[in-house]
Amino acid sequence: MSTKRIIALSGGVGGAKLALGLSRVLPPGDLTVIANTGDDFEHLGLAISPDIDTLLYTLAGLDNQATGWGRRDESWNFMAALEALGGETWFRLGDRDLATHAERTRRLRAGESLSQITDDFRTRFGIASRILPMSDDPVRTRVKTRDGWLDFQPYFVRQRCEPVISVIEFAGAADARPQPELLAALADPALGAVILCPSNPFISIEPILALRGVRAALRDCAAPVVAVSPIIGGRAVKGPTAKMMQELGLETSAAAVARRYGDVIDAYIVDHADAPDCAGLDPRIVPAKALMETLGDRETLARIVLEAAASVMEPAQ
Amino acid sequence: MSTKRIIALSGGVGGAKLALGLSRVLPPGDLTVIANTGDDFEHLGLAISPDIDTLLYTLAGLDNQATGWGRRDESWNFMAALEALGGETWFRLGDRDLATHAERTRRLRAGESLSQITDDFRTRFGIASRILPMSDDPVRTRVKTRDGWLDFQPYFVRQRCEPVISVIEFAGAADARPQPELLAALADPALGAVILCPSNPFISIEPILALRGVRAALRDCAAPVVAVSPIIGGRAVKGPTAKMMQELGLETSAAAVARRYGDVIDAYIVDHADAPDCAGLDPRIVPAKALMETLGDRETLARIVLEAAASVMEPAQ
Repeated sequence: MSTKRIIALSGGVGGAKLALGLSRVLPPGDLTVIANTGDDFEHLGLAISPDIDTLLYTLAGLDNQATGWGRRDESWNFMAALEALGGETWFRLGDRDLATHAERTRRLRAGESLSQITDDFRTRFGIASRILPMSDDPVRTRVKTRDGWLDFQPYFVRQRCEPVISVIEFAGAADARPQPELLAALADPALGAVILCPSNPFISIEPILALRGVRAALRDCAAPVVAVSPIIGGRAVKGPTAKMMQELGLETSAAAVARRYGDVIDAYIVDHADAPDCAGLDPRIVPAKALMETLGDRETLARIVLEAAASVMEPAQ
Repeated sequence: MSTKRIIALSGGVGGAKLALGLSRVLPPGDLTVIANTGDDFEHLGLAISPDIDTLLYTLAGLDNQATGWGRRDESWNFMAALEALGGETWFRLGDRDLATHAERTRRLRAGESLSQITDDFRTRFGIASRILPMSDDPVRTRVKTRDGWLDFQPYFVRQRCEPVISVIEFAGAADARPQPELLAALADPALGAVILCPSNPFISIEPILALRGVRAALRDCAAPVVAVSPIIGGRAVKGPTAKMMQELGLETSAAAVARRYGDVIDAYIVDHADAPDCAGLDPRIVPAKALMETLGDRETLARIVLEAAASVMEPAQ
């Protein structure tokens, strides 16, 4: 197994599960996770970064596996008191989780970058892997519905992805500076692999690919780029990926996600059920058990991903 | 007993105790409490109004009598999580209390006035009495120490009033518009009484008196102005009043507080222990049990205050 640096691009839940697996099978410190920040928003005056936080909580073992967001053993006294005052309660903020947003907000206002703050938080949470935002500049995912444009969290949380969407846009992506450590790693001939985690391609991975130069750097980088399908047996494990694909006029299949990633990826991990459908595709197809139910599943899938990356680098037999 | 409108000027703890007594012995809605906002500050991006909140919590029966601030049955999970992230923990924010600050901050940013927000909060807390800030404009109490000027909360909470002070200043008081309902009430010939609650004179009552026109309006108003001494038996019940008096070169006595209020007050409620010392003063001196230990004490003192106000209006025998 590689002991070189591994880069993982990730959104929330599904991506964080694989990131946890990778963090456990790699030597400490070899993994750097680049987090989507297209879901970030300001709420109640707080700077909220949902995917960064899901990664922090998951890699720290503090994640709430029942909800897929927030912290386990959370209390909700803030929320109950806010409701009594007639406040906005559609975005649920637990008492402990709130501290992450409050402290991040304070430090951003004091002039620190989201990268610095996130790196300090992961250290304080005792996480050996690096977690960095895809950019320190704001990028905001928005969706176009029949009733006009919606910001991401009002669409995703408040309206539970119910409106039919026709376009997804990453406002600010053209001007945002990509995470310098991502570009430096992609240009490094010693990079071990890049992994596109099984997050929602449209709202978790593509915001990162939309940053200036990132797609080209992935195409040009010496290391293998391995994606893991978020579609298992023709369905999304969690969240609105399948519904979005239908609304965007795409077939709901692992193969459609691979075609979407195009020539960026060298290998593609799919569930055994989806492998036949992917037979004719360009990237090397690696069938596996893609559903990560247990911690063991996460570690096993992480090993398969790393082996797939290594196999891409071997000369064809 | 009067059924006319009663105005009470109040700071936190001691003032809120008497305000609670008044709210219980007066017909619902007859009491309007004007709260000091000189202690207000921004912390963690939140607009915090300590005296307003102590009044809200006390009149709603939610106050923490052990601490004198915050809510009873509070939880501290936010604070513990903030500490783990290396955040600022010198100002203790309970999980439920936090909702008050977050919602106030959101509504202030949305353009509502502190008066509107506070009036809505007291309604939501089921409080019949009105609670209004002394001004919707920022006034900030600062103290001069040997090491320079300190903002109030860093002095009061962070440094526990330890630095010796030489000057107290209410930054912004000269430009702040006094609460319009206060000025209207003071100009109303039907006003029942004005009560200066037993709060710290220097940092709770004087910021209100420092607002443009308030001192003159109190002097000129037709209703009796009754103050309650915060000094009992030559000592402050709670807080730094006595220490401040010493540092400002004042005698620590109920009489010194009355002299400080000067011709603003018509009657002065003092503890039996302090009455002899006040004998030669201008305002009518009304001895009472000034220490409010029980709810009954608060109601009894409230009745004495209202009777003193009524007696001022009677022709001298």
